[in-house]
Amino acid sequence: MTSHVIDMAMLKNVFGTPEMRDVWSETNRIQKHLDVEAALALAEAELGLIPEKAAQVIAENAKADRLNEEDMQENMAKMKHSLMPTIKALQDACGKEAGEFVHYGVTTQDVVDTGTILQLKEAHTIIVKGLKAVAVELAKLSRKYRSTPMVGRSHGMQALPTTFGYKVAVVLNEVIRHLDRLKEAEARVFTGVLGGAVGTYASFGPQGHEVERRTLDKLELKTPDITWHSSRDRIAEYVGIIGLISATLGKLGNEFYNLMRTEIDELEEPFSQGKIGSTTMPHKRNPAALEGLASLTKPIRYNVAIVQEAMVVEHERDAMSWRGEWIALPESCIYLSSQLNTAQAVLSGLIVKPDNMLKNLNKLGGLLLSERVMFAAAESIGKQTAHELVYELSMKSAEEGISFKELLLVDERITKAFSKEELERLLDVTTYLGSAPETVDRVLEAAELSGWLTNEEEESNG
Amino acid sequence: MTSHVIDMAMLKNVFGTPEMRDVWSETNRIQKHLDVEAALALAEAELGLIPEKAAQVIAENAKADRLNEEDMQENMAKMKHSLMPTIKALQDACGKEAGEFVHYGVTTQDVVDTGTILQLKEAHTIIVKGLKAVAVELAKLSRKYRSTPMVGRSHGMQALPTTFGYKVAVVLNEVIRHLDRLKEAEARVFTGVLGGAVGTYASFGPQGHEVERRTLDKLELKTPDITWHSSRDRIAEYVGIIGLISATLGKLGNEFYNLMRTEIDELEEPFSQGKIGSTTMPHKRNPAALEGLASLTKPIRYNVAIVQEAMVVEHERDAMSWRGEWIALPESCIYLSSQLNTAQAVLSGLIVKPDNMLKNLNKLGGLLLSERVMFAAAESIGKQTAHELVYELSMKSAEEGISFKELLLVDERITKAFSKEELERLLDVTTYLGSAPETVDRVLEAAELSGWLTNEEEESNG
Amino acid sequence: MTSHVIDMAMLKNVFGTPEMRDVWSETNRIQKHLDVEAALALAEAELGLIPEKAAQVIAENAKADRLNEEDMQENMAKMKHSLMPTIKALQDACGKEAGEFVHYGVTTQDVVDTGTILQLKEAHTIIVKGLKAVAVELAKLSRKYRSTPMVGRSHGMQALPTTFGYKVAVVLNEVIRHLDRLKEAEARVFTGVLGGAVGTYASFGPQGHEVERRTLDKLELKTPDITWHSSRDRIAEYVGIIGLISATLGKLGNEFYNLMRTEIDELEEPFSQGKIGSTTMPHKRNPAALEGLASLTKPIRYNVAIVQEAMVVEHERDAMSWRGEWIALPESCIYLSSQLNTAQAVLSGLIVKPDNMLKNLNKLGGLLLSERVMFAAAESIGKQTAHELVYELSMKSAEEGISFKELLLVDERITKAFSKEELERLLDVTTYLGSAPETVDRVLEAAELSGWLTNEEEESNG
Amino acid sequence: MTSHVIDMAMLKNVFGTPEMRDVWSETNRIQKHLDVEAALALAEAELGLIPEKAAQVIAENAKADRLNEEDMQENMAKMKHSLMPTIKALQDACGKEAGEFVHYGVTTQDVVDTGTILQLKEAHTIIVKGLKAVAVELAKLSRKYRSTPMVGRSHGMQALPTTFGYKVAVVLNEVIRHLDRLKEAEARVFTGVLGGAVGTYASFGPQGHEVERRTLDKLELKTPDITWHSSRDRIAEYVGIIGLISATLGKLGNEFYNLMRTEIDELEEPFSQGKIGSTTMPHKRNPAALEGLASLTKPIRYNVAIVQEAMVVEHERDAMSWRGEWIALPESCIYLSSQLNTAQAVLSGLIVKPDNMLKNLNKLGGLLLSERVMFAAAESIGKQTAHELVYELSMKSAEEGISFKELLLVDERITKAFSKEELERLLDVTTYLGSAPETVDRVLEAAELSGWLTNEEEESNG
Repeated sequence: MTSHVIDMAMLKNVFGTPEMRDVWSETNRIQKHLDVEAALALAEAELGLIPEKAAQVIAENAKADRLNEEDMQENMAKMKHSLMPTIKALQDACGKEAGEFVHYGVTTQDVVDTGTILQLKEAHTIIVKGLKAVAVELAKLSRKYRSTPMVGRSHGMQALPTTFGYKVAVVLNEVIRHLDRLKEAEARVFTGVLGGAVGTYASFGPQGHEVERRTLDKLELKTPDITWHSSRDRIAEYVGIIGLISATLGKLGNEFYNLMRTEIDELEEPFSQGKIGSTTMPHKRNPAALEGLASLTKPIRYNVAIVQEAMVVEHERDAMSWRGEWIALPESCIYLSSQLNTAQAVLSGLIVKPDNMLKNLNKLGGLLLSERVMFAAAESIGKQTAHELVYELSMKSAEEGISFKELLLVDERITKAFSKEELERLLDVTTYLGSAPETVDRVLEAAELSGWLTNEEEESNG
Repeated sequence: MTSHVIDMAMLKNVFGTPEMRDVWSETNRIQKHLDVEAALALAEAELGLIPEKAAQVIAENAKADRLNEEDMQENMAKMKHSLMPTIKALQDACGKEAGEFVHYGVTTQDVVDTGTILQLKEAHTIIVKGLKAVAVELAKLSRKYRSTPMVGRSHGMQALPTTFGYKVAVVLNEVIRHLDRLKEAEARVFTGVLGGAVGTYASFGPQGHEVERRTLDKLELKTPDITWHSSRDRIAEYVGIIGLISATLGKLGNEFYNLMRTEIDELEEPFSQGKIGSTTMPHKRNPAALEGLASLTKPIRYNVAIVQEAMVVEHERDAMSWRGEWIALPESCIYLSSQLNTAQAVLSGLIVKPDNMLKNLNKLGGLLLSERVMFAAAESIGKQTAHELVYELSMKSAEEGISFKELLLVDERITKAFSKEELERLLDVTTYLGSAPETVDRVLEAAELSGWLTNEEEESNG
Repeated sequence: MTSHVIDMAMLKNVFGTPEMRDVWSETNRIQKHLDVEAALALAEAELGLIPEKAAQVIAENAKADRLNEEDMQENMAKMKHSLMPTIKALQDACGKEAGEFVHYGVTTQDVVDTGTILQLKEAHTIIVKGLKAVAVELAKLSRKYRSTPMVGRSHGMQALPTTFGYKVAVVLNEVIRHLDRLKEAEARVFTGVLGGAVGTYASFGPQGHEVERRTLDKLELKTPDITWHSSRDRIAEYVGIIGLISATLGKLGNEFYNLMRTEIDELEEPFSQGKIGSTTMPHKRNPAALEGLASLTKPIRYNVAIVQEAMVVEHERDAMSWRGEWIALPESCIYLSSQLNTAQAVLSGLIVKPDNMLKNLNKLGGLLLSERVMFAAAESIGKQTAHELVYELSMKSAEEGISFKELLLVDERITKAFSKEELERLLDVTTYLGSAPETVDRVLEAAELSGWLTNEEEESNG
Repeated sequence: MTSHVIDMAMLKNVFGTPEMRDVWSETNRIQKHLDVEAALALAEAELGLIPEKAAQVIAENAKADRLNEEDMQENMAKMKHSLMPTIKALQDACGKEAGEFVHYGVTTQDVVDTGTILQLKEAHTIIVKGLKAVAVELAKLSRKYRSTPMVGRSHGMQALPTTFGYKVAVVLNEVIRHLDRLKEAEARVFTGVLGGAVGTYASFGPQGHEVERRTLDKLELKTPDITWHSSRDRIAEYVGIIGLISATLGKLGNEFYNLMRTEIDELEEPFSQGKIGSTTMPHKRNPAALEGLASLTKPIRYNVAIVQEAMVVEHERDAMSWRGEWIALPESCIYLSSQLNTAQAVLSGLIVKPDNMLKNLNKLGGLLLSERVMFAAAESIGKQTAHELVYELSMKSAEEGISFKELLLVDERITKAFSKEELERLLDVTTYLGSAPETVDRVLEAAELSGWLTNEEEESNG
């Protein structure tokens, strides 16, 4: 019986994906510890530090499903140590002779930290794949709705026309930057560590660094210049990038949630038959997926602070900072997996309503193009004067409920400047999109050039 | 296979207690939803809104272990709704006739929110009990070490003598304030809610408030003046108090961790045979329990912010804010349960080392009593002058490594003021405890008067 | 030239009020330190610890405007100590004889902490006054719009009718709880401290506690049982309550911002002639005040975490935790002062648009009352069947764009159950308000009973 | 009179440096707005959008000290708009003719956002310079104390020997990574924006993007692919890196604070004559600089979360998210400037005490080398057996207070394995440094290769 939403049978799929939960599962955690022990033994045997034979036995037995789980839990209760029961079980599985050489010369944190990075690397593959898929969907929507007029809003109020493709392209551009950030962090983050109790390799003798290098090579991780037991910036950097990505996805969720409001109704999240909107209100189609998308940004954001706090390690190792990472790193990856999944599903099935977008554009009776009228008027009566005139008529329109267009048509200062036809052309929202479509093209071109829209997933693992 | 430390077989007991995990388990969560449905049906039957018979059938079947778990999970996947599968399963269990009257007139959030409060009330009982037990241990230590001299430190540096009992009494006084805060919050927090879709009781007809009152009475919760679907301050208040309590316990953990440092060695956490300090350093006895105690304050602190953020609800109900609470409220209670448990264990088995305390007091060769010398000297040569003189000699002692006492004995300004015997009396650390012991008495008396040191647990449930 | 928005000539009034800035100004900070020194000297003289004459001289000179500011800043640069320059300046002002008795027997933190509480008490008076004023405005709006129908929304979507008065009453109820919380915290929070270097009163001799009591009595603060130099829960508690209040005000700002959206347009913040909405879009009337109201909740929320972190003090005093409080406590009070001010202004001048509320209620062609139709139909065809029927027609209405009402009128299952007139009555939104108006009455009555709507400001200072 | 510590005469130098305060001063803020307006006018004139003459007048008058400050503040009170008073003052200074062309075609956020980036670029120069200086000091200390033995500690307890140079090299390696991160972020972060009301350049006609490009070229900023009014990841990324840097500096402060404890006394922060340690305890030399260094990490950490929260922008522009940035970005830069300054001062004047380091190494009577004894014994009696034996003797030593060495000398299992001389050699702490010195060399070499230890400051501005 589980007590955290991440693990609850009924709720877990709202907070994460099975794939990402597997990465951070207890089984995989233990398996990664065993992988480190196996690679270490093999490297040590190569260097003559332990017998070749022992290394082979250790490597063969370093499989989570070969260990006695019951013994491990019993030992955990007694030893109160997060790794020792695993080592003990591995030793038991290896037999007395080879067992003596398990965990030879390293310290707990060597194994736990390197194991964590192995898990994080698996998580990273999922994240990059998911974010690329989101980028692809954003690119499709940008292209398709490149010139579809809709209201641009500032301060929650209608401001000027834009296009739906433009709105999506802003997010696409942001996502491409995140993919670049993930790439830049790879060399720093996917670095293991094996340095012994205080990082000095004291128990290895002079071959310490070589043991570390060979072990980490086998695990396909980079070797650090010096221990990072007490230097947690790599993990904090990664969780920080997750925070940035999650903020973008949360913004997207919140944006679409707002555009799906009954009174705006320009978008709708995909609907699956059988989904329940409300237990009492049969008409309700709720933006449930969008709310999920928007809400998971919050716990992820606080986790950024938790891991930055965990950077303040005391001395050579400090178990107080670990716990923050054990909580925050899996949580952030798991919540993000749900967001990536939802974002992709919402984007690929999004119901876009260009008719409603147009209806909203015309809602204010021309007021939305007051800027255009002002700029056009500025040419004959000067910018400041035009601003004041248009301001006056706008306020009047708002206060007296008279259409802005009607007010313009009877204002002498305006009728002197424009004919009725000119004014109608000026008030056509679909022709005041500025360079929105061309800007979409520029963003799409940059996205193509970035290489992130292709499917060559290997790139991110290089 | 679980993925959150709260649920991992090997780690869960480091992050929570079984008792508190049970409160927030998925089973108990569902059971509480069923409890609400049962109480609702009975209340509605009393008021003639649904048939008496149906209410009885519902109440009988509202047991988590009677429902078809498999069906529920299948429905969850299809319905993507956090409560509907439970309702459906309850309806199925009740049969067609009574089933129609399940969940009559309420909305999902009514059931989920009230269920959460029922869980929180169980958690509260554990928290109050645990915190009282901590207070009792603190009182014992304060009393026992009321007059045991030790170094008082400021800025991490030795400052003046105090007593160990005094140090503990500061924490006891703080804990008593927390118990008062928990008590004050009870009436506000343990309040249910049943208002229908937007809180107006529209589907109940005029008897809405009476349905709510009777249902909540049955559940031993208070009835609100108005819905709190969109008003989450109660939960935020409680999680805020958990934050305060946790900060105190974290401070205690950090303090004892520092006093257990090899170079200070005034305290030691209890040691259990078989516990592993280090996989490589056999001499290590680590402050593992204290580190656990200290570290769990951090995630709890961020949860305070998460629930305060969840207070910013949009409109009449808002699923985005729920998720923050579903994460933060159980986490905070569970992490706190571990801290309370550890604090009690550490305090009751604490190894106190008065000899080392005394040794540290004398480490600076009298420098620690420079204030006393200064005040004594001030009587003959004036405060400012005395300050400057003692300052000069202190610096000299620190810089030249000469004992402060030796410097005093050869300084004419001092020898004019005091005889050697007077000086030695002045430099006796055990007689410069100020009113520390009397202050401990005052704190103990106040704690007794508060009633929190007794075992009448019912008080907190009143 | 200032660098923080709180102090910038152009921006400061967006982030705080002059009244609250004065409380936390450097001048007032120094004055409060001087007030503590004065009260201390007078208390010490009463107890014969220092000469009566000296105390009088100190009390007379303990005025910020009497001290040599230039000297103080020069000394600050040299001494790098936050209080010593003030003490030095006071000593200089008092002359050699009396000067010797300035700051007699206390430590820096005694003066700084007690001074902070004196400032906080002034801030508290402003906060209580401001929050009561907000409560009064909320009560007025609740009463006035008690029965004004508007759309209740969940998940951002139209759900069921409610009244505007009901919506406001939810907030009023929440604000009353905050006022209760502020009251409950008073005795704990407005407590000073004077204990000397490690809290033991060592330098006062046996009269230490009496010196403390008399000094704090003069300052109208409570006396603690034991030092709180290392026990910061009082300040954390207060900042936590500010966080709760601010979350409520931020929620209100966000709610009204959403209701002011061009497409919803049910409310509008008061508009003052001359205010600029947009530099380029003359038609824009932005919810600028509401955005300010909504946005200041965020920095205040993080400050809650900062002060809870500051509770983890090391040993008897710890300058690391001070800094967090010096930043977070004034900031939170100042940002809150702006929110209280804005909330009161917005509420008292709020433009409410009942016509638009009604228009939005009818936007969905009856779909909003699907629940009512369902419950009415349930009486003849059973709840579950009714739910499915209404669900089917609702979906059809949404998907095919046909009015819900039209679909009902041609559905045989419905027409069998209701006449056309009955159906029209069922679809009248203004008669499906449930107990909303009566609930408003209950909230108003509770608010009256609480005493917080009266003007007896003294209550909060008792 | 100021109310924030950043601006208080007495405290501001504890929370920031004059240089960084100037960057974020109100004057510089306004000047940067004027710089943008000037560059914009010149670019527009080049493209024939406004008269050449007008552009020249605007550029000449766009100086903060030419504007009427009083008018600006009066207008601020009336207009309640953060930029309009500046524009108005610039227009007034330019005269009616040229004034019409001020701010032509752009929106407030164009100017404010681009101005912020100009300020941030200045801040960045200071940060890179400061962090390089810290790196240089760390490199010096690493090199100097490359082989100086000291205690390595884990869990706050003595663990194994290391060297002081090694400890410092860990931090140096971390700082080099931060410098790389700063470099990688430059191209993304130092990007301006000019897109008009909703980013579409609608008011510029087809030349919009060219106006933007030319204006930003003049300001030496990059041109974005698309607006980032609603895409705040750049600022969040930078504040995130500040968080990482600050965590490293805070860790350093905390570490040295702990090593300066009276009972450890291995380091001491530089002491300046005249600095006051304590108002009452003349012997106190407090780690005041280190406490300042350690404490400013906390508010900076929460600011990381504030700006990530500010990424969740609604629609095309959203004034709610600005405020978070206006608070958090300057604060983080200013607090960091103080940390960089303090770190450099502390590192360059650090008092290192190798004698005390050695004394602490020998404090446990050989227990510190139990691992070495264990490994040596393992060769003859097997690893597991050796672990158990050494464990048993270690515990006995701790519990009975007998020196570990003495226990070894009388244990038959040990005396069978080693001669007395061999044992003494094994227990010599200065010969159990592992590869610590060689690792320092590797870190120094990598630091040299990184190029960050040189003084070519232009690199960071490239």
